[in-house]
Amino acid sequence: KLDWTETDDRAVDTARALAMDSVQRVGNGHPGTAMSLAPAAYLLFQKVMRHNPADPHWPGRDRFVLSCGHSSLTLYIQLYLGGWGLELEDLRSLRTWNSKTPGHPEFGHTAGVETTTGPLGQGIGNAVGMAMAARRERGMLDPNAAEGESPFDHQIYVLASDGDIEEGVSSEASSLAGTQQLGNLTLIYDENKISIEDDTDVALSEDVPARYAAYGWHVQVVDWVNGSGAYTEDVPALHEALRKAEAVTDQPSIIVLRTIIAWPAPNAQNTGTAHGSALGEDEVRATKEVMGMNPDLTFDVAPDVLAHTRSAVERGKDAQREWDAAFQHWTTKKSADVALFERMQTRTLPDGWDADLPVWDADLKGTATRKASGAVINAIAPHVPEMWGGSADLAGSNNTTIEGAPSFIPKSRSTDMWKGDPYAGRVLHFGIREHGMGAILNGIAVHGGTRVFGATFLTFSDYMRPSVRLAALMGLPVTYVWTHDSIGLGEDGPTHQPVEHLAALRAIPGLDVVRPADANETAAAWKTVLEHTDRPAGIVLTRQNVRTFPRDAEGFSDTSNVHRGGYVLRDVDGGEPDVVLIGTGSEVQLAVEASDLLAADGVRARVVSMPCREWFDEQEASYRETVIPPTVKARVSVEAGIKLGWREIVGDHGRSVSIETFGASADYERLYTEYGITARAVADAAHDSITAAG
Amino acid sequence: KLDWTETDDRAVDTARALAMDSVQRVGNGHPGTAMSLAPAAYLLFQKVMRHNPADPHWPGRDRFVLSCGHSSLTLYIQLYLGGWGLELEDLRSLRTWNSKTPGHPEFGHTAGVETTTGPLGQGIGNAVGMAMAARRERGMLDPNAAEGESPFDHQIYVLASDGDIEEGVSSEASSLAGTQQLGNLTLIYDENKISIEDDTDVALSEDVPARYAAYGWHVQVVDWVNGSGAYTEDVPALHEALRKAEAVTDQPSIIVLRTIIAWPAPNAQNTGTAHGSALGEDEVRATKEVMGMNPDLTFDVAPDVLAHTRSAVERGKDAQREWDAAFQHWTTKKSADVALFERMQTRTLPDGWDADLPVWDADLKGTATRKASGAVINAIAPHVPEMWGGSADLAGSNNTTIEGAPSFIPKSRSTDMWKGDPYAGRVLHFGIREHGMGAILNGIAVHGGTRVFGATFLTFSDYMRPSVRLAALMGLPVTYVWTHDSIGLGEDGPTHQPVEHLAALRAIPGLDVVRPADANETAAAWKTVLEHTDRPAGIVLTRQNVRTFPRDAEGFSDTSNVHRGGYVLRDVDGGEPDVVLIGTGSEVQLAVEASDLLAADGVRARVVSMPCREWFDEQEASYRETVIPPTVKARVSVEAGIKLGWREIVGDHGRSVSIETFGASADYERLYTEYGITARAVADAAHDSITAAG
Repeated sequence: KLDWTETDDRAVDTARALAMDSVQRVGNGHPGTAMSLAPAAYLLFQKVMRHNPADPHWPGRDRFVLSCGHSSLTLYIQLYLGGWGLELEDLRSLRTWNSKTPGHPEFGHTAGVETTTGPLGQGIGNAVGMAMAARRERGMLDPNAAEGESPFDHQIYVLASDGDIEEGVSSEASSLAGTQQLGNLTLIYDENKISIEDDTDVALSEDVPARYAAYGWHVQVVDWVNGSGAYTEDVPALHEALRKAEAVTDQPSIIVLRTIIAWPAPNAQNTGTAHGSALGEDEVRATKEVMGMNPDLTFDVAPDVLAHTRSAVERGKDAQREWDAAFQHWTTKKSADVALFERMQTRTLPDGWDADLPVWDADLKGTATRKASGAVINAIAPHVPEMWGGSADLAGSNNTTIEGAPSFIPKSRSTDMWKGDPYAGRVLHFGIREHGMGAILNGIAVHGGTRVFGATFLTFSDYMRPSVRLAALMGLPVTYVWTHDSIGLGEDGPTHQPVEHLAALRAIPGLDVVRPADANETAAAWKTVLEHTDRPAGIVLTRQNVRTFPRDAEGFSDTSNVHRGGYVLRDVDGGEPDVVLIGTGSEVQLAVEASDLLAADGVRARVVSMPCREWFDEQEASYRETVIPPTVKARVSVEAGIKLGWREIVGDHGRSVSIETFGASADYERLYTEYGITARAVADAAHDSITAAG
Repeated sequence: KLDWTETDDRAVDTARALAMDSVQRVGNGHPGTAMSLAPAAYLLFQKVMRHNPADPHWPGRDRFVLSCGHSSLTLYIQLYLGGWGLELEDLRSLRTWNSKTPGHPEFGHTAGVETTTGPLGQGIGNAVGMAMAARRERGMLDPNAAEGESPFDHQIYVLASDGDIEEGVSSEASSLAGTQQLGNLTLIYDENKISIEDDTDVALSEDVPARYAAYGWHVQVVDWVNGSGAYTEDVPALHEALRKAEAVTDQPSIIVLRTIIAWPAPNAQNTGTAHGSALGEDEVRATKEVMGMNPDLTFDVAPDVLAHTRSAVERGKDAQREWDAAFQHWTTKKSADVALFERMQTRTLPDGWDADLPVWDADLKGTATRKASGAVINAIAPHVPEMWGGSADLAGSNNTTIEGAPSFIPKSRSTDMWKGDPYAGRVLHFGIREHGMGAILNGIAVHGGTRVFGATFLTFSDYMRPSVRLAALMGLPVTYVWTHDSIGLGEDGPTHQPVEHLAALRAIPGLDVVRPADANETAAAWKTVLEHTDRPAGIVLTRQNVRTFPRDAEGFSDTSNVHRGGYVLRDVDGGEPDVVLIGTGSEVQLAVEASDLLAADGVRARVVSMPCREWFDEQEASYRETVIPPTVKARVSVEAGIKLGWREIVGDHGRSVSIETFGASADYERLYTEYGITARAVADAAHDSITAAG
């Protein structure tokens, strides 16, 4: 039963006034939705969600995602009213340098912000990921508790706008949420039918409730607009819908909330300008008058209102105390893995986690690095139960399946090939939904301490790129397994052959792009990636076999410097080399062959393997110069992709063996020859560079 | 009434046998869907579609899109049977170097292939674009003809797989197709419930017919699987559904066709391996036996079958002759703009199309290039009726609206702000669906001679990147208007501020990335972009005002070399400069200011504006060296983004003033200062570079 008083009404109106004042002060921003969604946000934060303003990281908390991140005030104002650490001064400094209240909510920047949103649709995907992570964590820690009885049961709430609903990434994630029967997920869709181009009728006519019903969601409509009748902010009806949604445990829930944007502004309501512009002083005054507030005051909060809303702090502490008791009880269970719980809080890997990393013997025929990666995953998985992942319908090609583990799907969705277990499952099936996968991976990562990976072909990293960027922006330890990493995939042709992707991914600040040269480098690469907890990484792997190099033998170095991003794989004897050959991934073997060709010509060529440009750039200059001596100006890079970015390494006298056009459909040996990615080409470039370097 | 004989049945079985044989020969590929969809494809190509194998470019033809491009044999075999120019030899060389039958269908490579497909979901978006383009072309050429009576009325058919349905890009495009009421579009969804991870139950449980009904589509289900009953390839039922779909002129149609993949292979049917692997000799033999064919023969086509299917050539000629008569009749109409029709066939711009391009006077305060772009669009639009475009819900921010033109939407979807006209409309509203927009733009471009543009913020080019890549791969003259091109957008913060996007887009082969420095460069940039018809371009524009430079005055050059991608904007008097400052877009004004600062220090700095790296790279070295003399090693680039790629221009002794991290939320002047993108920083870098260059 909802306890809602006149003070709550005043608090909601205060939220609206603060939204108007904040935007008015900075002169730009998005007041409209923050006004009309104030009752819904207040209801969630003050009456529905279990959370604790004093401990924003409490693992038992419900999660809140503001998918419509442009309406950041919706969240900031609740964080202010609820006592999460924001004060009026922070609202006054909205959208200004160094404030706690940037234009869009930023994860890790403002307490209470669970994920960075703004690029539309992503938040819905994040919420789906959080709901999956919540189920997985419960599955690891407390699988046998009755539904709703575990301290690890909690709810995920997401607020979304018309734009979130239009973006394909939310369609993908929502469809998968239906398959996954995520009963712990509730989406409130603010259907105000206004976006930047005003009335959404010009571009949005679908029946959203019917669409979500088709996905298998539990659907409710709460219509405050009442057709064209009088607008009524029926908070009890919304509260009732939220309770019903929570009671449905085998379906995600959507509540379509029909609102009027910028309500109750007398003139700005229901307009596109109210979406993204300050209302103007006159309209702000008029709206305050409508709400019975003094129009002469700005940032005015009645002390009794604030006292009322800040009681959330005490309620939160009480809730957490109650949870602590349940948690303590859990720790006494025989099945409780407290150490795992604690490790996950800090993302600490267990001792000996890498004890079984495979080692491959030298082999000219070698193995595909994707295959090596599969072996690595399966060598780590038994030690690191918090590691899980899967593919966007390319499991067999990406080699990402944790063998013997169930799939993370409801049991009823088991197939001949995959056995499902909604709790114990560790193998993720995203369907052919790379973008949804990317957003879900981010949600899993922000939710808690599991280590998750997701896979597709490298060329389809484009499909998930907006989510990859957000992972980098948030510094999330998500691992992408991107296989079929060049024209080396062969016959599928140019649509499937990445040529620009390595460069384009390296362009994203904060993303590690790791392209190991052989099986043993693949193991070392995975090890380094998992040891990082502050950033995402893409592990880029071949379809085709590549030579497994000798290690610490025959002049080849071991893999102990892989984590430095670049290292001397095979050096010349004594003194400086005449030329340095730098390769990545499958082209390192060409550099090695080229050095043999050059030796026959009397040219002394050092071979450098550079699996990760970002790791190499992080090294001290003193190390980097031992790998590529500043005095040796003759340098050649070789990578089966565009040369963009290699000039930084090879310099003015260097040469880059590369592919500057799209690929073609043929077997990969033919393609390497036709595109001139050969040992001979590397050797020729070396001669050329030596001449240029004088 | 469907005319279907035993010979047609044999032709369909022949298609299946050829699919198996082709994959078996090369050893890899996708036989399964080509087998089970053979009846549907044959029905379309031989019995339903109006097209002419002898003239694949006949403007009156129906269009066919194979969205599931991996099943390229579905298409190739119909092109062979129908006499489009493929022969058995081409099927024998499937997926090999230089063949007409690459792994995925490639536009411009094989006659009869209307668009490049393979990246899933794109084909559905392309088909939506084709259907929109068909309506627009009819609207320009023959708006008053009765429905179905114009020579410019034709149908768009698209075949799609489970994967196409899962991808968000198809959700976006399909939703918009419903809004647009595209009665000329029919989607056959091959629901075989098998993808690479086998049974799609693990990731796909939605009710697709209900979802498409929610989008406003006309929905039919043709179930050849009959629940779990006997499989019946009921071709007449599919034919009837196609006829019904064609009869519905105010809704797009989906026909959900339930099939068993790899039918009738006795063992491989209904398996994930049949999706993407050769069946093996034994299974091929067994399947041929099931079909009553001689298992000892490969690539065997009975002469009477081929004669029967090749009759498509004569039928096609007849159809085109009939159309020619209707077309001739059309040319006699008073309303017929035959010159426009002919121009569109060759994408020729009319004389004087650029006569009204605006010219801006020098102005220190200047104007935002997005605003200049809006003026340019509106100066061209009256001369070039085939130009149309719009935005993904950012019309006002992108400045892309053709003023006074109706919106391209059904009249019933008009709003207070936008008046709709389904034929005369030129303003496109994509909703917040950048990826769908990208795929639709490609479909519009491949359909015919209109010139289309689509807009969003530069940071959201990531959302549409897979479609941009395909535009580049196909060489389509699509224009992207990407505004809010740097931290200069200010308060919206890092989620909305591109920093890596210029570099990442330049990485795509065949895409021109054009970032004009001021209003007059914006006009020159648009002019050059529209003069290209063989490639896409992105015009990258500021939110904030930038100085309008004097032209051919005060030492500044005119804009006559903008089309060369880089030119000397302001030189020093006499002799070589001490340093060359190279800027793009809004940072060119900083280079100009820096040259003044340097002049005060006695340093002679040339300022180069480089709006398009790709155009500059295309110039002869002799021109490029007049802009950046090889002898002047002191060089500074300045661009408010990562420096990736600039080393190529500035060389080992050069410096790049850049931003290597994500942005932040604040006003843009503050951001430029905090991130060190200032004239002072450019001048300092110039001193530094001069020192380094010795």
